[in-house]
Amino acid sequence: MMTGPENAITDVPGVLVGHSTLIRDEPEVVRTGITMVVPRADVWTDYVYAGSHVLNGDGEMTGLIWVAESGMLGSPIGITSTSQVGLVRDFLVAETHRLGVVAGFHLPVVGETWDGWLSTPGSFPLTADHAASALAGAGPGPVAEGAIGGGTGMICHEFKGGIGTSSRVGTAAGEPFTVGVLVQANYGERSDLRVDGVPVGREIGVDVVPSAWSEPPVGGSTVTSPHDGGSIIIVIATDAPLLPVQCRRLAQRATVGLARVGGYGHESSGDIFIAFSTANHLGGDRESPLEVRTLPLDSMDPVFHAAADATEEAIVNALCGAETMTGRAGHVASALPLDLLVEVMGKYRA
Amino acid sequence: MMTGPENAITDVPGVLVGHSTLIRDEPEVVRTGITMVVPRADVWTDYVYAGSHVLNGDGEMTGLIWVAESGMLGSPIGITSTSQVGLVRDFLVAETHRLGVVAGFHLPVVGETWDGWLSTPGSFPLTADHAASALAGAGPGPVAEGAIGGGTGMICHEFKGGIGTSSRVGTAAGEPFTVGVLVQANYGERSDLRVDGVPVGREIGVDVVPSAWSEPPVGGSTVTSPHDGGSIIIVIATDAPLLPVQCRRLAQRATVGLARVGGYGHESSGDIFIAFSTANHLGGDRESPLEVRTLPLDSMDPVFHAAADATEEAIVNALCGAETMTGRAGHVASALPLDLLVEVMGKYRA
Amino acid sequence: MMTGPENAITDVPGVLVGHSTLIRDEPEVVRTGITMVVPRADVWTDYVYAGSHVLNGDGEMTGLIWVAESGMLGSPIGITSTSQVGLVRDFLVAETHRLGVVAGFHLPVVGETWDGWLSTPGSFPLTADHAASALAGAGPGPVAEGAIGGGTGMICHEFKGGIGTSSRVGTAAGEPFTVGVLVQANYGERSDLRVDGVPVGREIGVDVVPSAWSEPPVGGSTVTSPHDGGSIIIVIATDAPLLPVQCRRLAQRATVGLARVGGYGHESSGDIFIAFSTANHLGGDRESPLEVRTLPLDSMDPVFHAAADATEEAIVNALCGAETMTGRAGHVASALPLDLLVEVMGKYRA
Amino acid sequence: MMTGPENAITDVPGVLVGHSTLIRDEPEVVRTGITMVVPRADVWTDYVYAGSHVLNGDGEMTGLIWVAESGMLGSPIGITSTSQVGLVRDFLVAETHRLGVVAGFHLPVVGETWDGWLSTPGSFPLTADHAASALAGAGPGPVAEGAIGGGTGMICHEFKGGIGTSSRVGTAAGEPFTVGVLVQANYGERSDLRVDGVPVGREIGVDVVPSAWSEPPVGGSTVTSPHDGGSIIIVIATDAPLLPVQCRRLAQRATVGLARVGGYGHESSGDIFIAFSTANHLGGDRESPLEVRTLPLDSMDPVFHAAADATEEAIVNALCGAETMTGRAGHVASALPLDLLVEVMGKYRA
Repeated sequence: MMTGPENAITDVPGVLVGHSTLIRDEPEVVRTGITMVVPRADVWTDYVYAGSHVLNGDGEMTGLIWVAESGMLGSPIGITSTSQVGLVRDFLVAETHRLGVVAGFHLPVVGETWDGWLSTPGSFPLTADHAASALAGAGPGPVAEGAIGGGTGMICHEFKGGIGTSSRVGTAAGEPFTVGVLVQANYGERSDLRVDGVPVGREIGVDVVPSAWSEPPVGGSTVTSPHDGGSIIIVIATDAPLLPVQCRRLAQRATVGLARVGGYGHESSGDIFIAFSTANHLGGDRESPLEVRTLPLDSMDPVFHAAADATEEAIVNALCGAETMTGRAGHVASALPLDLLVEVMGKYRA
Repeated sequence: MMTGPENAITDVPGVLVGHSTLIRDEPEVVRTGITMVVPRADVWTDYVYAGSHVLNGDGEMTGLIWVAESGMLGSPIGITSTSQVGLVRDFLVAETHRLGVVAGFHLPVVGETWDGWLSTPGSFPLTADHAASALAGAGPGPVAEGAIGGGTGMICHEFKGGIGTSSRVGTAAGEPFTVGVLVQANYGERSDLRVDGVPVGREIGVDVVPSAWSEPPVGGSTVTSPHDGGSIIIVIATDAPLLPVQCRRLAQRATVGLARVGGYGHESSGDIFIAFSTANHLGGDRESPLEVRTLPLDSMDPVFHAAADATEEAIVNALCGAETMTGRAGHVASALPLDLLVEVMGKYRA
Repeated sequence: MMTGPENAITDVPGVLVGHSTLIRDEPEVVRTGITMVVPRADVWTDYVYAGSHVLNGDGEMTGLIWVAESGMLGSPIGITSTSQVGLVRDFLVAETHRLGVVAGFHLPVVGETWDGWLSTPGSFPLTADHAASALAGAGPGPVAEGAIGGGTGMICHEFKGGIGTSSRVGTAAGEPFTVGVLVQANYGERSDLRVDGVPVGREIGVDVVPSAWSEPPVGGSTVTSPHDGGSIIIVIATDAPLLPVQCRRLAQRATVGLARVGGYGHESSGDIFIAFSTANHLGGDRESPLEVRTLPLDSMDPVFHAAADATEEAIVNALCGAETMTGRAGHVASALPLDLLVEVMGKYRA
Repeated sequence: MMTGPENAITDVPGVLVGHSTLIRDEPEVVRTGITMVVPRADVWTDYVYAGSHVLNGDGEMTGLIWVAESGMLGSPIGITSTSQVGLVRDFLVAETHRLGVVAGFHLPVVGETWDGWLSTPGSFPLTADHAASALAGAGPGPVAEGAIGGGTGMICHEFKGGIGTSSRVGTAAGEPFTVGVLVQANYGERSDLRVDGVPVGREIGVDVVPSAWSEPPVGGSTVTSPHDGGSIIIVIATDAPLLPVQCRRLAQRATVGLARVGGYGHESSGDIFIAFSTANHLGGDRESPLEVRTLPLDSMDPVFHAAADATEEAIVNALCGAETMTGRAGHVASALPLDLLVEVMGKYRA
């Protein structure tokens, strides 16, 4: 399948992405941030259908109880550090008041992955202003990848991880559609990493490029966490006309792409996926039944393929888009060396 | 809320109900049967949206995996004895072949409750012909209640139980709707039975009317089963325009009606509920997106009330519609004495 | 079944409850607070098994993804106002850092109901200090009920609502157990309220005691919200030895008690239930398999009954424990008049 | 990870597998059968903990409602053709009567995949005797693979499919464990097939080996079905001490192995997985709490890896173990040519 023009989640018309990145070394080392995925600018009053899936639930995504019940999403999706999910969640509630959304959506969706290896745990450096900045900056077009926004302090397959995105275009039930995926990738073991089936992680082992989880040679922190194994948040957007039950099915296809890159859903991982469809407009008059559109039975396979494939590529893009970062306690997360990647891929090509 | 004209699930236009009852004393005592609820005559090719809920899952309802995945139901719903769910399920598969439904629905929905106290366990007396008869006889209009069809051998609150039905009409999002409920009631303890809040089961205790679970005075079977506590299958139909996610919500409201009569979801009970909406037509062309109708957010409460209230009344109707039955091993299931019921209700009325 | 000595959730040994209440009229009218239910003092390192159920999901309870995945709960349970769930959630994360729980639980459970009818919406008056105060004050023994803690601004069946609690003691599988329930009750219509089956809400109608949702005679706010219909958080504790799958089953029994009082699971209601068992100790050594205890199959019914009955009474206790409150914009939430309640109950008694 | 001695699900001590295969050309072409996986010989009275996961639910597995509720499995697992799930399910109920299991398990687990391309649809050729034969023949040791038992008429990645099995041994929480997997593989597109990451299906395309879905050159049936895309049933056994919640987590890891071979969870696919643990004994006395063992938090990753890896290999083994079969209407399902497989693998090896 072909990618969309930007190979990004923003290829789905109306979807906006914004980042707020906080990197500082004083008074404590901070490598954190917030990413906002806005399904459409007026999502606060014109909801989208949505559904979610959890591969492994050692993580948080607020708002999913209401997504499951109503099948709807009525807020931007925030993604941030584990410690400050609540801050971003309450900010989005406050935003409904600021916007005067009287019948508003007080149950926003905010996910997280853990950045405490590079950023000081227990420091809580983000403020509502950072969240506001990420939201205000949300726009269409190209999406910055790697160590940015919520992805700032992330580690993936023991390389530097972060935000990645990709898209696919196709046809379902006779109509063109776009699927876009954005990931905050913070999971996985080196030895499991595969790119297009090639065992890149075995070829570029921790003897070649040290694990991001390594302690610096002298001293250093010994903090470990159940989140060490990491997590991945995957957001899937589409303009294909999906009902809530279909969005939920789509969300589960993130597992397929993730598994191909080397995800197992480790026990300490929060592998949480949300999918939404912008095709229907759910705001406005609530005094009469709505007419909505849906893909008929047995027409979703192209959308499933698109979601799995774009997820796979978005993770690889997160790895390729990230640069080496030094964080707290001398922790160094090395980027996946692109020259070695090319070399390994060539070695395994028929 | 008002009932529909028949106070039955068939008040939902297009819904059909048929029973096949098998009562014999030779070669073994049999008190069993099959009930079919047909969402619409051409449901095989024109599916309905559906959803389910389980209060306690010590029971079987085939086909729910596909209902959950697709949100659709494409077969009649069979209800029968625990032992012969498979027979009825395979019959419905065979029926798709007989009808030549080439792209057909091979995952039919068949539920059960246990009739082994009155009917000989391990006897497997039903045949595909009984299933065919129940289906062929399915029609609109009044629905026979009590010890008939799948409800033949059932026990409810230690009285004779069986099939009951009820309906409610109302308005949601400016449009009239009907909700119809059919139950196969086989659960509950005497002391928990309430009718409109009145503790009927405490007033008409087992000292007044013996428990249906009593052994006959001399000898008799001592077989007990994890199913002793019983089960209840609840089918909710509506013509309100509901998506799958909304059907699932509706199904859970059966719990509310059941709890008011005295259901706790006992550990050995299969309290399984399915709801479907006939408002949308899902057959035909699969080459382009469908347009479907849905109740908008915050307009479902009247439908929820209707489902809970009709469930409550359907259970009471199952009790009031059943007559005393003697089954295997001298087991006697006494009917709820209507004169005593009236007397007790009067005693508690303000 | 008998109640425990305090008829409170704290009858389950080790369970602690604390409240922080914030009532002020300047600079804006605030009627809010936080309640903490602590499964045991060292729950941070000695987890309890837990499970949850959602009757209607127009609400938030953070942390449930991890509860579902792991079957464990490793933090106090916070209950507060809808707007400030995030604050309380992040406070509990910070608390793990303050306590030095290095392998700690970063996914705390915090639920909410909406208090915006009595307390100024959009005011966000709570701080981490309030959360700390609720937690620091958590203790055993009697639990204050009504308009206190998270229950401060709540409305139930159009009377003043809030916090209520109850307990039951019984025997399961040959061992004594206690079930305790605490509710934050903020749901329901007047006409649906029943006490022990008696239609109290129809007898004490809004013509007798005005609805808490009434506007004051002159002017006043016209803000309404999807949360108007309200919500209820129900926490069930037990010392019966339950595995996670059994805790989830127990959580669903809250529906039974709620339905009997008059809950329907309204569409705009967040009816979210969590149950935990303190019987097993899940901390300590992780290097070898744990031995844990569990009720065997077919022995849970007494625990189910206890949970349903204690839920029913806890809601009534919330109503009986609350006093009339005047909030923002002249909104008055009248208490359920106990003299009228007694009168009505007597009228319906046989 | 290492395989067990037989590289089969029977490497988990106590697990038995039996097949019944029905191949005939008169009076209609039949290519079908039944496979039984017996968790332990006395599973009828000594249950095992279990859990399930559905990747895509266009399929049936009976009994999962009770597995979800109780966390237990008390019957052999049958796997057969879509049309005759009911027959096998009712046979297992009858077996409890034959064995005199008075408090028995009347909710057996039977899964299916569709064999109607090679075997005549609508023919219903299996009888209870075939089910009895599969069960009677269940034994330990090597497991026949390919076109046998329930796998007889199956197609996988457009090659001949069927039954495959594999196992892994490892250590979790300081104790050795075995994970065994058995699949009935009937899913997938040629172009998606990968073996150890190598795009075998693109290299051995339908121009090299015709698709099993091809019509014969002259005439032939044109029946297609929603099941054309196929299905896969995956059974995971382990002797690691897992609670129900942990079994459910394990079941989902089948997705990881399946995705790596080329499964997407197609819309018309029934990708249904069940996992059970034989470590605890759940029969006997029900009058007092049971003591059971469980892996502690954060010790399951080796078991997860084992399940994913054994699933991947079991599917490949199903492909490698099957021989070319000609079925009804001249349909030919060609085996994966092992010489070409070796050639392709060599081409892509570094």
